[in-house]
Amino acid sequence: MLRSLAILTVTSAALLRAATPALMPLPFKVEYGTGALAIDSNFNVSAGGAWLLARLSRQTGIPMPAKAPAKLEIVVDTSSGEYPGLGDDESYTLDVAAAGARIHAHTRWGSLRAMATFAQLVVPSRSGFEVPAVHIEDRPRFPWRGLMLDVSRHWMPLPVVLRNLDAMAAVKLNVFHWHLSDDQGFRVESKLYPRLQEYGSEGHYYTQAEITRAVNYARDRGIRVIPEFDVPGHTLSWFPGYPDLASGPGPYEIGHRFGVFDPVLDPSRDSTYEFLEGFLGEMARLFPDTYFHIGGDEVNGKQWAQSPSVQAFAKQHAFKDTLAIQRSFSQRVREILARHGKTMIGWDEILQPGLGADTVIQTWRNQSSLAESVRAGYRGILSWGYYLDHLSPASYHYGIDPQGGAAAQLTPEQSSRILGGEACMWSELVDPETVDSRIWPRAAAIAERFWSPQSVTDIDSMYDRLESVSRGLEWLGLEHRSNYVPMLDRLTGDRRVPVVRVLADAVQALGLGPRGGSKYTTDTPLNRLVDAARPESESVRALEKAGTAELRRVFTEWAANDAAFQPLAQDNTLLAELRNLSKDLSAVGEIGLKALDYLASGKPAPPGWVAAQSVELTRMSKPNAEVMLVAVRPVQSLLEKLR
Amino acid sequence: MLRSLAILTVTSAALLRAATPALMPLPFKVEYGTGALAIDSNFNVSAGGAWLLARLSRQTGIPMPAKAPAKLEIVVDTSSGEYPGLGDDESYTLDVAAAGARIHAHTRWGSLRAMATFAQLVVPSRSGFEVPAVHIEDRPRFPWRGLMLDVSRHWMPLPVVLRNLDAMAAVKLNVFHWHLSDDQGFRVESKLYPRLQEYGSEGHYYTQAEITRAVNYARDRGIRVIPEFDVPGHTLSWFPGYPDLASGPGPYEIGHRFGVFDPVLDPSRDSTYEFLEGFLGEMARLFPDTYFHIGGDEVNGKQWAQSPSVQAFAKQHAFKDTLAIQRSFSQRVREILARHGKTMIGWDEILQPGLGADTVIQTWRNQSSLAESVRAGYRGILSWGYYLDHLSPASYHYGIDPQGGAAAQLTPEQSSRILGGEACMWSELVDPETVDSRIWPRAAAIAERFWSPQSVTDIDSMYDRLESVSRGLEWLGLEHRSNYVPMLDRLTGDRRVPVVRVLADAVQALGLGPRGGSKYTTDTPLNRLVDAARPESESVRALEKAGTAELRRVFTEWAANDAAFQPLAQDNTLLAELRNLSKDLSAVGEIGLKALDYLASGKPAPPGWVAAQSVELTRMSKPNAEVMLVAVRPVQSLLEKLR
Repeated sequence: MLRSLAILTVTSAALLRAATPALMPLPFKVEYGTGALAIDSNFNVSAGGAWLLARLSRQTGIPMPAKAPAKLEIVVDTSSGEYPGLGDDESYTLDVAAAGARIHAHTRWGSLRAMATFAQLVVPSRSGFEVPAVHIEDRPRFPWRGLMLDVSRHWMPLPVVLRNLDAMAAVKLNVFHWHLSDDQGFRVESKLYPRLQEYGSEGHYYTQAEITRAVNYARDRGIRVIPEFDVPGHTLSWFPGYPDLASGPGPYEIGHRFGVFDPVLDPSRDSTYEFLEGFLGEMARLFPDTYFHIGGDEVNGKQWAQSPSVQAFAKQHAFKDTLAIQRSFSQRVREILARHGKTMIGWDEILQPGLGADTVIQTWRNQSSLAESVRAGYRGILSWGYYLDHLSPASYHYGIDPQGGAAAQLTPEQSSRILGGEACMWSELVDPETVDSRIWPRAAAIAERFWSPQSVTDIDSMYDRLESVSRGLEWLGLEHRSNYVPMLDRLTGDRRVPVVRVLADAVQALGLGPRGGSKYTTDTPLNRLVDAARPESESVRALEKAGTAELRRVFTEWAANDAAFQPLAQDNTLLAELRNLSKDLSAVGEIGLKALDYLASGKPAPPGWVAAQSVELTRMSKPNAEVMLVAVRPVQSLLEKLR
Repeated sequence: MLRSLAILTVTSAALLRAATPALMPLPFKVEYGTGALAIDSNFNVSAGGAWLLARLSRQTGIPMPAKAPAKLEIVVDTSSGEYPGLGDDESYTLDVAAAGARIHAHTRWGSLRAMATFAQLVVPSRSGFEVPAVHIEDRPRFPWRGLMLDVSRHWMPLPVVLRNLDAMAAVKLNVFHWHLSDDQGFRVESKLYPRLQEYGSEGHYYTQAEITRAVNYARDRGIRVIPEFDVPGHTLSWFPGYPDLASGPGPYEIGHRFGVFDPVLDPSRDSTYEFLEGFLGEMARLFPDTYFHIGGDEVNGKQWAQSPSVQAFAKQHAFKDTLAIQRSFSQRVREILARHGKTMIGWDEILQPGLGADTVIQTWRNQSSLAESVRAGYRGILSWGYYLDHLSPASYHYGIDPQGGAAAQLTPEQSSRILGGEACMWSELVDPETVDSRIWPRAAAIAERFWSPQSVTDIDSMYDRLESVSRGLEWLGLEHRSNYVPMLDRLTGDRRVPVVRVLADAVQALGLGPRGGSKYTTDTPLNRLVDAARPESESVRALEKAGTAELRRVFTEWAANDAAFQPLAQDNTLLAELRNLSKDLSAVGEIGLKALDYLASGKPAPPGWVAAQSVELTRMSKPNAEVMLVAVRPVQSLLEKLR
């Protein structure tokens, strides 16, 4: 595992550039030179670079008909396998000069990483666009850099998957973990067991041809696709079509609420394993990757406790509790997968002595659990701390290190079994319209954690670059920014929305937990302010660094906003829930203006004023309509100065 | 032809509604009642309405799983043909009450028009969304309401076509005129003559399966698809694959510049007609519509004059000029089409005595030409005045009536042969990124001209509703609004863009003519401010109705803008061309602020001041960097008040 410091040599020439490229993940070594390579309609790439050419053409708006000689030469040492494998060499060097550029990589996958860097290097110039002269040496810290997408709780049509694969490639993520079945939907066509999708998906599933299309699309971007079929729990959607698989009597319906359900597979019957032998074999053939995820999380044991058959089975084998039963089940699933040439991955709960040494444990519970897994000899990947559905700030995720926390105490040999991590997008409260904005740009910060040297930890630098990288993802068709205004427009129907936008910019959406996911269903409209609002308010973050004049301008806008908002909220339920929030925003603006006045006067505020306003701000910073009024933050900072 | 007045009965209850639906085209008769039908997750539509359900779900953000009984019942009297035909009954009635709604139409096409109206009726409510109680009777004024899209000069991939078909259906346009070949590209797969697409498209063409997909997609929205293969001129892209079709010796290359080229089909050789017999027959089978467009415009005659064969042919038949030769050619093409069951359409130039009486003339030159066509007994459609690529204001197009101008003098019998009109989107200076913003929302105003009673002419009302309709098109996937900010972001690369946005909001893009299209090629980047800027500035139009406080706020913003803009323009060619424009905008702001001061003072401005500023504003209203600084307009109005 690479632990050396990143070497960043930025020449003064580069610092003087009008536009500096924002690279994310930050490469291992970057040395800017002088001069630049023009990116114009004569730009061309050698074989293997058509993908980059199409991307640059879209990014710059310049047609690149690929008629001129290649200006970017791609040299790959070995003909890589057809499909990327864990641990394949992804290193590359990239050299750019005014006359041309060159990528050198050991594998095709490395050259794809280099092209992702090249695309981020493009900046406006005196003649159009250019890439500054640079020498880059780069290689990943971890070989497993993933994004998990849950397509069960809310269905995500294929275009959502494809555009997110594009975004993953742009920030060098290399594992797409596809959570394909759960209580709320079974999302893959099985030809052996067609009642799975017929009764388990409400018509929303991928055909096998679509799966293959996505797998090939990912492969062409150097991304491995790991399917997950969660067993023995989270299987409610399997049972409408195949009720005999369950541990209790049916009938069953697909889940429409969220949480941990009682129905689980019956581990006591041979027919369950025969079904899995057939089904997993079929899926093993459909997905080329060597690794295969079988879930294994959140079995509450209720149905097993109520089943005479399972109880007899447990007694016969002396399984003393739910976990012991599940371990035996996992062991048999592992054997099935092994027969089909697959290595098993599962969540924390599958951890037990005697699993195959090649098993990979994906940790969602805490960092100690990861440490425990690798101490037990298994390999591990970290997802605790990377749950995107919690809507934590990018800085939070950025601060979590797969080899940090409890894992920091491991021996080098143990630590080397930490393969990397995965950002997780659970879909209780996201749909195709909002999912991009819940993944991006925050997943790019996580991607940097997985790729760049451990020493790269400057949060300000991360945020500066994140904004540019986020913008760049728009050229790939991601909708994380473009969905914002239309969703705010929807709130008001046929009228202009400036005041709604002012309010929306001043808040942050709550994540699954604090929203109270259990009160929602898969049919709940996700069309409220909380769904449109960003997980992080860029404008409030900018305001925290702003000068007095800008603060006064914005506070004035906030103070005036509520008077225009309240009439809009009449006869409009989507706005009505925001009435108090809007009032609070204007109050925050008023407090801010007064604080500025006191600061400007050089005289202290009246006795008790600061304390009283602090109480108010604390009250207003509590969740309201499932968002947080983060507008209070810059005003709280001003009050600190007045104390 | 329907000429009665539109009856609009708006009850006081409706006027008091928080949100009033914006209907476009305005229906023939609208009577609002009391109460409203809730649009929530229990909303459902009877058979034939799945399309509407999907649209409403996206528009409102509410899942509509179609489990509840239908709240909107659709009754269609006759089982319409499989494919829409010219003159099919598109009338409908729509009745909405709190308990449910009903559509009654004679044909499936009429029910589709009713559903488009229903979608526009949805407004926010106290409980989510609703449709107000209403009785609507509606029918089109003209049976031919088209949009022409040129996919030759710039290639438009299938998704561009499909989303524009969705938008057409939303505003009741019913003819998609697909300009499939021109000098710059041949865009359809021919199986009989594959060198057409192989040598004529640079790889950018629709397969026959894609054509069929688009035709079916259009049919499901009640839209007829009329293919155009422009002959004998505008055929340069046919010749790289089949040089013997040309009237002069090759070799030939696809055109990359724009304008009228010399090479045209050879009308003197039988082989030309044999080729057309085969090719047009193949296309006649591919496109089910009875009408078939053969172009026929802009033959300059140079190649014919230089060809001994054509000259001998002309002499033999006593054709005295280019037009006479072309008329003979058109006549033979008409016979070929007739053998394949198709009725010919062509541009003005095909007009001649003795064409089949069923021929349709599409007028692009002027309204007299339309009058001449229908006086000669042919049917006509108007496109003069509806050229979207000129980037004229919506109000300009809205003021052109197919039965106005020279056509107003026709007898009722002659006038009845005016079938309607078509908005035309020529693609010299648009690409897939910008095309939506050049069609929409202005084409919706033209759609109202074609559908609504002739008496519907209130421009303010049109603009009020246009803004809502434009917003609604976003839910159909149109990118006419969402492309704006990313294109402005591109101008600045990695930095924030507020000042660029301020400048962009204050200008309007020039159309093809004033931009000087002949200096561009198909490979010219369309990534400048002029490409991002709107054909009409909504913010300037709003400003022209704003009060003093808002004027002062905006003028202050303009006045300060240039100081922040100039540093951005350093080392950035896309911004550098805007330096003077930005300076002018700030000057306009300064003049506006002074004018406000003089008006507020109640005293006259110093002698000569108004005259001097007017001269300045006139200078600044001249095109600059291919845009117009329309910010001058509200300031000019203030100066008028000071005179």
